Amino acid sequence: MHDIKVIIRTTEMQEYSERMRSVGKTIAFVPTMGFLHEGHLPLIKEGRKLGDNLVVSIFVNPSQFSPEEDFESYPRNFDNDLKLLQKEGVDVIFYPDKNDLYQDGFQTYVELENLPKHLCGISRPIFFQGVATVVTKLFNIVKPHIAIFGRKDYQQLVIIRRMARDLNFDIKIVGFPTVREPDGLAMSSRNTYLTPEQRINALSLYKSLKQSKKLVESGIKDAKRIIDAAYTLIKSHPETVIDYIAICDPETLADMETIDRPALMALAVNVGKTRLIDNMILKP
Amino acid sequence: MHDIKVIIRTTEMQEYSERMRSVGKTIAFVPTMGFLHEGHLPLIKEGRKLGDNLVVSIFVNPSQFSPEEDFESYPRNFDNDLKLLQKEGVDVIFYPDKNDLYQDGFQTYVELENLPKHLCGISRPIFFQGVATVVTKLFNIVKPHIAIFGRKDYQQLVIIRRMARDLNFDIKIVGFPTVREPDGLAMSSRNTYLTPEQRINALSLYKSLKQSKKLVESGIKDAKRIIDAAYTLIKSHPETVIDYIAICDPETLADMETIDRPALMALAVNVGKTRLIDNMILKP
Repeated sequence: MHDIKVIIRTTEMQEYSERMRSVGKTIAFVPTMGFLHEGHLPLIKEGRKLGDNLVVSIFVNPSQFSPEEDFESYPRNFDNDLKLLQKEGVDVIFYPDKNDLYQDGFQTYVELENLPKHLCGISRPIFFQGVATVVTKLFNIVKPHIAIFGRKDYQQLVIIRRMARDLNFDIKIVGFPTVREPDGLAMSSRNTYLTPEQRINALSLYKSLKQSKKLVESGIKDAKRIIDAAYTLIKSHPETVIDYIAICDPETLADMETIDRPALMALAVNVGKTRLIDNMILKP
Repeated sequence: MHDIKVIIRTTEMQEYSERMRSVGKTIAFVPTMGFLHEGHLPLIKEGRKLGDNLVVSIFVNPSQFSPEEDFESYPRNFDNDLKLLQKEGVDVIFYPDKNDLYQDGFQTYVELENLPKHLCGISRPIFFQGVATVVTKLFNIVKPHIAIFGRKDYQQLVIIRRMARDLNFDIKIVGFPTVREPDGLAMSSRNTYLTPEQRINALSLYKSLKQSKKLVESGIKDAKRIIDAAYTLIKSHPETVIDYIAICDPETLADMETIDRPALMALAVNVGKTRLIDNMILKP
């Protein structure tokens, strides 16, 4: 069986990466919150292809959860994660302790001015500050050449790209397509929260995206009309509460009124108590 | 004459540093705003000792100046800086263009929660955000093992230490003692703004620090009494407008009422239109 290393301490992780870099090895990095599932596998396989050494981090980052969110109850299963990552030929699991990562007197945050003011950032105002900060920290600890993020968290990907460019991280940011269940539901650790009935209603997110794609392909360019149709479709499913449905510029995330060029359609919907997100690029 | 390399582009700087690191060289880094003077020399000599390769950056960072401050008029003299750095055996001058460092759509900032709320941060609210951000960028571009900062900018040094620790930069931060003119005035590029009369009055900063040190050594522990005496001394000099005089904890910068352990005394005074700062550790 493939040898896998579990590193807990930040300084040990830095030493490992320095050692690998000093002998010319390329480090690929997949940051995760653990509780790994089928949706993570393609990112990890991609990482395996892109780097001589593949590091996967498992860390549920407290600073990106607000007090009323599910930090405590967020699903965790390290033993299972370990088995899965070993099977995938991962070299290192970086599994830090939150007291090592956020030491006494911690007070430094990475903030973006505009990108977090859209989509999920509206209802989760501290979320992207937490993400940008922890990713900056992980980049400085893991020192990768390449880092891979899923496109399911599209706003997160755009923010990390911008952050990496603005702060001159010498790291290639790779965005990986959303992995879906056979019926189309985007894979997410939070899907395990869903009851069987909620699981059916959760599919309304993907159905509304597919409907929007068809409408745009049929020649409709008015964003409002497409969003209205998506609202109607999702609201026809029980237990759904829509946070937002938006059609926006894929880079700036600013709302678009007319789909005269590729646009991002993104949505967040609570199904019961579970917040789900999904997105798709609409091409006129 | 020693060979010196001037690097303008951020990507070229990163490639240089990667190349040096990959053959096991230690990179020492001294960031400056140029217009180098005797006060910079000991930092540069220290850098020469600490690294196999010594990189000095010259960049007047627009994001740390507020609109009413002296960004445009801040003194610059690249030719002179080049000669001086060549003489000191510096390997690389990193001399970036501000449009390369701050590209279209730039929007990411590094912010600290508490340390900027003291001393200079009160009258210069955006200053330390600008400093923390540009130093993060320079660290990611120059990729040093060791970075050297002067203790004259004491709050800046404490903020960079905290930022480097909080964001897990794998870089040793070295603080270097303030370099003074023979009469005690702390060396600064801004001293060139002073008229001969102002130059005499500028000495009141150092005099007040020396007076405070004597008072503490004579057994006085009451911070307010020492600060009052410093006010009186400085105000007796024409053209001086005091921004602040503070006695505080050297790590948190929180005000201290009683000097029962080593304390930082820091002050900022406008002499004519020139803002000068200085500081000293007071030991009971």
